[in-house]
Amino acid sequence: MTTGKTQVAIIGGGPSGLLLSQLLHTRGIDSVVLERRTKAHVLGRIRAGVLEQGLIALMDEAGCADRLHAEGFVHDGVQLSFGEDRVHINIVEAAGKPVVVYGQTEVTRDLYAAREAAGGRLIFEAEDVAIHDATSDAPFVTYTLGGDSHRLDCDFVAGCDGFHGISRQTIPASARTEFEKLYPFGWLGILSETPPVVPEILYANSPRGFALCSMRNAALSRYYIQCPLTDRVEDWSDDAFWDEFRRRIPSDVAADLVTGPSIEKSIAPLRSFVCEPMQWGRLFLCGDAAHIVPPTGAKGLNTAASDVHYLFHALSEYYQTGDSAGIEGYSDQALARVWKTQRFSWWLTSLMHRTPEMSDFEERMQVAEIAFLRENHAAQTAMAQNYVGLPY
Amino acid sequence: MTTGKTQVAIIGGGPSGLLLSQLLHTRGIDSVVLERRTKAHVLGRIRAGVLEQGLIALMDEAGCADRLHAEGFVHDGVQLSFGEDRVHINIVEAAGKPVVVYGQTEVTRDLYAAREAAGGRLIFEAEDVAIHDATSDAPFVTYTLGGDSHRLDCDFVAGCDGFHGISRQTIPASARTEFEKLYPFGWLGILSETPPVVPEILYANSPRGFALCSMRNAALSRYYIQCPLTDRVEDWSDDAFWDEFRRRIPSDVAADLVTGPSIEKSIAPLRSFVCEPMQWGRLFLCGDAAHIVPPTGAKGLNTAASDVHYLFHALSEYYQTGDSAGIEGYSDQALARVWKTQRFSWWLTSLMHRTPEMSDFEERMQVAEIAFLRENHAAQTAMAQNYVGLPY
Repeated sequence: MTTGKTQVAIIGGGPSGLLLSQLLHTRGIDSVVLERRTKAHVLGRIRAGVLEQGLIALMDEAGCADRLHAEGFVHDGVQLSFGEDRVHINIVEAAGKPVVVYGQTEVTRDLYAAREAAGGRLIFEAEDVAIHDATSDAPFVTYTLGGDSHRLDCDFVAGCDGFHGISRQTIPASARTEFEKLYPFGWLGILSETPPVVPEILYANSPRGFALCSMRNAALSRYYIQCPLTDRVEDWSDDAFWDEFRRRIPSDVAADLVTGPSIEKSIAPLRSFVCEPMQWGRLFLCGDAAHIVPPTGAKGLNTAASDVHYLFHALSEYYQTGDSAGIEGYSDQALARVWKTQRFSWWLTSLMHRTPEMSDFEERMQVAEIAFLRENHAAQTAMAQNYVGLPY
Repeated sequence: MTTGKTQVAIIGGGPSGLLLSQLLHTRGIDSVVLERRTKAHVLGRIRAGVLEQGLIALMDEAGCADRLHAEGFVHDGVQLSFGEDRVHINIVEAAGKPVVVYGQTEVTRDLYAAREAAGGRLIFEAEDVAIHDATSDAPFVTYTLGGDSHRLDCDFVAGCDGFHGISRQTIPASARTEFEKLYPFGWLGILSETPPVVPEILYANSPRGFALCSMRNAALSRYYIQCPLTDRVEDWSDDAFWDEFRRRIPSDVAADLVTGPSIEKSIAPLRSFVCEPMQWGRLFLCGDAAHIVPPTGAKGLNTAASDVHYLFHALSEYYQTGDSAGIEGYSDQALARVWKTQRFSWWLTSLMHRTPEMSDFEERMQVAEIAFLRENHAAQTAMAQNYVGLPY
């Protein structure tokens, strides 16, 4: 058994864990990041790419935002369509700030570069990770690495290891409550080296189901269509995808669509999930370890960032002043914003998708909601304020 | 067969028909109102009592608003509660105008007085009413009165005879589409000669279900609780009502509650319903004949008034200038607002009621929506603009 020591043991080397580690580093707080997979694997995950200003501010504070500012695409608006009807919401006018399109993979890459440049301890392929004595003053984490057993003593554990990670499972089932909604459809997404068909993100509700036009950059598009959960990626040729996609977006948009071979194609289910509380003794959950949103509205990474914000400030305060009020209140503070984000993601998902079970009346409620959004400045403002990110 | 003639035959002597008749009178357009029941019966119906400014403006234009202005209670706000949490929305601040509490029965009474003073033709207990040749240029209405057959020739027919009336049924089923949602609960309401427990209307969501604190005047309260559709009025003693009501409102409100014997008690189901189109040839549907909202938000009478507004202006334009654009576009114009009101009523109903089928996640969506309303000015504004009435 090899032993080690740090102040904050961070389980999970995705963007939440890396961002927390780098932020703690700026305050001289030591951490170790334990990641189950390889770095290449983590960087191979395709995720959303719409960043709120709150996340960007954290990247600035972490000293990792140079490339994001240079290469990110600032979006001043977002579009919704319902059949041929389109609503453009000027989010800067309505909510005072834009969002920035910059892939989650790029965020992760920048954070790795910063952690590595700073000599941060990142341990990949850490297996059999387990959190011990989380409710004591001396928690520790054990893991194996290439067959060798390790023990890492720490003051605190940050569980940033996602929905399927071990951190949430470490909290006894009797000490947590889980809230979940599974949606009766998935998203089939492709990445294609083609110019984006619209300069802003377009959420499309059509009689054939939902479609999303998004992008990574001027030559890389990310498109999605709602599909049955029983569909398999192998069942969808690129041609079949483009044909279906074209039928779900307004015809003037479809006329401009440039298609090409997919360089990635996947199907993801849609889930709303929250675990309460988000802490257990000295273990704190961040991001997908504690909550999942459906991708509509792109709140996954952004909500993880708000958790990191609260936890970073709580830990900084503790180490700088000894005041533990922040760490004791972490779960309540994080959850207050989590639930608001859950509401927005659920609302936008419900507004934009069709299901066979929907009645004609419910479909008309979607039409009426979109019509109200088109006409009502306050409704646009409320939507835009959520879209750009509620204040921390 | 006794024959008669008018310009506009109005089916139904409730507030929509009477208001239309009186408004047409101010422009010198003749109408006859055919009501199936007695005047006493119509005045015996207890309905909502929150008036939008649009309806008040129509009452002013009809010359029937003196008592409403003298006796109506101006409300500058509305309250929502969720358990012990309360949200006060200042509707005047958020939407620029108040609502006025004045019972629908009183509106109807004032309209009868005006019609009678002007010598308007009101025919009560008209039986076997039928609309003929609605798609021709010469429609007519037949009915029997005390066993005698009557025929009323007219230019137009206004169907103001409510959900169960004959007007909508006159449109062939193949020429209309109906949208409907039935809610899995009803409202048990009582009228009681007690002072209202809160000075504004309070919509309460509690773990035991919905409750509503409303009033007619300083000595007459109108309270409701959500109940199963299988409940019967006879099953609810006054004491049982008060006990249950008290448990659903915030405890500081309950502490102030003055109870007393009910002077009216009834159970109503909740329904959302829209018929498209709202016209067929020269027959125009107004109010409940074309659409029903659940009572949450008190939009029934107010939406009927917006129909009357559009139809009154369309008919006035036709008679004054011969231009039929307004009457041809009546259905589209009325429905655009109808669907927005349907959306608001459905949203507020969904937000404030509990059902056994609701998941814990859905309950948290209610909590989050109310929390967002409490904190977000734009969301309050959008809510208030709907509550005071969207523009005609």
